[in-house]
Amino acid sequence: MDRVYNFAPGPSMLPLPVLEQVQRELLCYGDTGMSVMEMSHRSKMYLEIFEQAKADFKDVMGVPEGYSVLFLQGGATAMFAAVAMNLMQGGSADYVDSGNFAHNALVEAGKYGTVRVAGSSREDNYTHIPGYTLDPGARYVHITTNNTIYGTRWSSLPDTGSVPLVADMSSNILSEVYDVSRFGLIYAGAQKNVAPAGLVIVVVRDDLLGHALPITPKVMDFKTMVEKDSMLNTPNCFGIYVAGLVFRWIRERGGVAALEKVNIEKADLLYGFLDESRLFRGTAERRDRSRMNVTFVTGDPDTDARFVKEAAARGLVNVKGHRIVGGMRASIYNAMPVEGVQALVSFMKEFEARNA
Amino acid sequence: MDRVYNFAPGPSMLPLPVLEQVQRELLCYGDTGMSVMEMSHRSKMYLEIFEQAKADFKDVMGVPEGYSVLFLQGGATAMFAAVAMNLMQGGSADYVDSGNFAHNALVEAGKYGTVRVAGSSREDNYTHIPGYTLDPGARYVHITTNNTIYGTRWSSLPDTGSVPLVADMSSNILSEVYDVSRFGLIYAGAQKNVAPAGLVIVVVRDDLLGHALPITPKVMDFKTMVEKDSMLNTPNCFGIYVAGLVFRWIRERGGVAALEKVNIEKADLLYGFLDESRLFRGTAERRDRSRMNVTFVTGDPDTDARFVKEAAARGLVNVKGHRIVGGMRASIYNAMPVEGVQALVSFMKEFEARNA
Repeated sequence: MDRVYNFAPGPSMLPLPVLEQVQRELLCYGDTGMSVMEMSHRSKMYLEIFEQAKADFKDVMGVPEGYSVLFLQGGATAMFAAVAMNLMQGGSADYVDSGNFAHNALVEAGKYGTVRVAGSSREDNYTHIPGYTLDPGARYVHITTNNTIYGTRWSSLPDTGSVPLVADMSSNILSEVYDVSRFGLIYAGAQKNVAPAGLVIVVVRDDLLGHALPITPKVMDFKTMVEKDSMLNTPNCFGIYVAGLVFRWIRERGGVAALEKVNIEKADLLYGFLDESRLFRGTAERRDRSRMNVTFVTGDPDTDARFVKEAAARGLVNVKGHRIVGGMRASIYNAMPVEGVQALVSFMKEFEARNA
Repeated sequence: MDRVYNFAPGPSMLPLPVLEQVQRELLCYGDTGMSVMEMSHRSKMYLEIFEQAKADFKDVMGVPEGYSVLFLQGGATAMFAAVAMNLMQGGSADYVDSGNFAHNALVEAGKYGTVRVAGSSREDNYTHIPGYTLDPGARYVHITTNNTIYGTRWSSLPDTGSVPLVADMSSNILSEVYDVSRFGLIYAGAQKNVAPAGLVIVVVRDDLLGHALPITPKVMDFKTMVEKDSMLNTPNCFGIYVAGLVFRWIRERGGVAALEKVNIEKADLLYGFLDESRLFRGTAERRDRSRMNVTFVTGDPDTDARFVKEAAARGLVNVKGHRIVGGMRASIYNAMPVEGVQALVSFMKEFEARNA
């Protein structure tokens, strides 16, 4: 069986060279006589893998001095609670409600303090990034840099002054260059642009540590986890190993800046065709279009369903849109090659010729 | 490089046939054209893997009607908090302090209610399972069925009457037959007897659901997770897949009852030698000896260190004891073959002949 082009929104494609290396090393890593899955997390051999992964992440992400990097469990959804537990301090936080996960984040945070909705595009079915007003007394401002389900993206970051900016970057981390120094905290579930599911990366500015609520579970206390270098308890060792290989792959491809160029090229290919198509149209507002998740429809649910099915038969799989939005969504993360997007556009043209 | 006999306490050895299957399927699972790591957790192909893993776990564990099974993240340490958040209801719970992790569990639970230490062997450096008295008004009684660091095991379960018995089975789940109906809740980090780290299994009696404290993070709310079949958010898909292969391996070997016989045989081999040795002696009290973690010393730290080093040179790795206890520890989980234990005992005899 040939490998397919997998447009799933996450878990999603991983770079083939990374998978091949994982496969080669699966029974025996180097001269250790064991699989990475079998290594004690406190062993010298594993700590080398762990430290290299952390160093490579800091390198490709451009993490400056004064920030710590954590590899935790529970995905972004666990971090919805953890961020509020660590930063809210019984005060109020501003949340921009730009999509389904942004909304879930603010609902969860409401358990631990006062959530103020600084702006929302919920009424418009999240087809754009909303306008917002900020509270200068907020403990932090929370945004979702890319909205996976709706296919939107913050094209410029809010200026939050001295209020820490917190970002859920689950669906676009390492796909474009960010200036980390503009953020107080960044978190990202790994299962889209980085690694298999079960790992969440946190980048936190060190001065924000140490204010967790007393009811914070130890595994969610960022200060404790920084002190223990993510190893208060056994981490997702294998996920971190795969993530490390992906960070190295990113570096070998020229870093995030080089990938960003390719990602823009991929997105332009798709949006360019959507804008001239007689059958398909994009659903997100142009100015806020995501480069990672391209959402589109024909306008007819039956035609949409037929397109999804026929695409799959061509090895272009998982282009069905999220059940909340319907239609189609092509998720084109770092690991999706240009050739995959070209193949999709080519099939869209062919389908259009038969159906428009 | 040949594979070694790995006596690590966790993460630890996995069955070789399981690793070989993972390796074969790593680039392409069946006719899906993708790796399991790349599958959407909501896809039909992944849900088949997930449901099969759950069914096989219920089968080998003997989970009766009226219980639900969860595959969560965060390890046992996350469950230390989650158990208390879900079951404490602002009341009091009895904890038996039989080891390091038992102690960590009760400290963490203290954030969410009143913890009563029902018994403790802390003063004796946890060399045995302590006596205990139970509070009939407790919300639950918490025990740790096997104490990884100290090499002790509960040889008979406490009779808690109508008070739910909660057990951390991280280091001996599926290594011996348990009557699940005696428990209100069982949890176990997967990285010892089941799968790579990053997965924790929970078995919960359904009548205990629905009483979580309002500050419980969604990912730790057992009722929500049961309703969402562990998929409120993306689970550790790959870990669950490997766990599923291990469950099937257990079944093919004759189930837990058959493995228990082998595990007793392995433990008897080691303890039998320790009891007649002129150089080595076991550190746990005989009546409470673990079948999974065999702790022993020579009495001389330098000789211990030399033994650990020389054993490693023979491909018998990770027999160093936990830093709290010192000496040696051989962790002989399900995946450790009898031949590995025979090789260790054989080397111990040889080392003794040279050093006693």
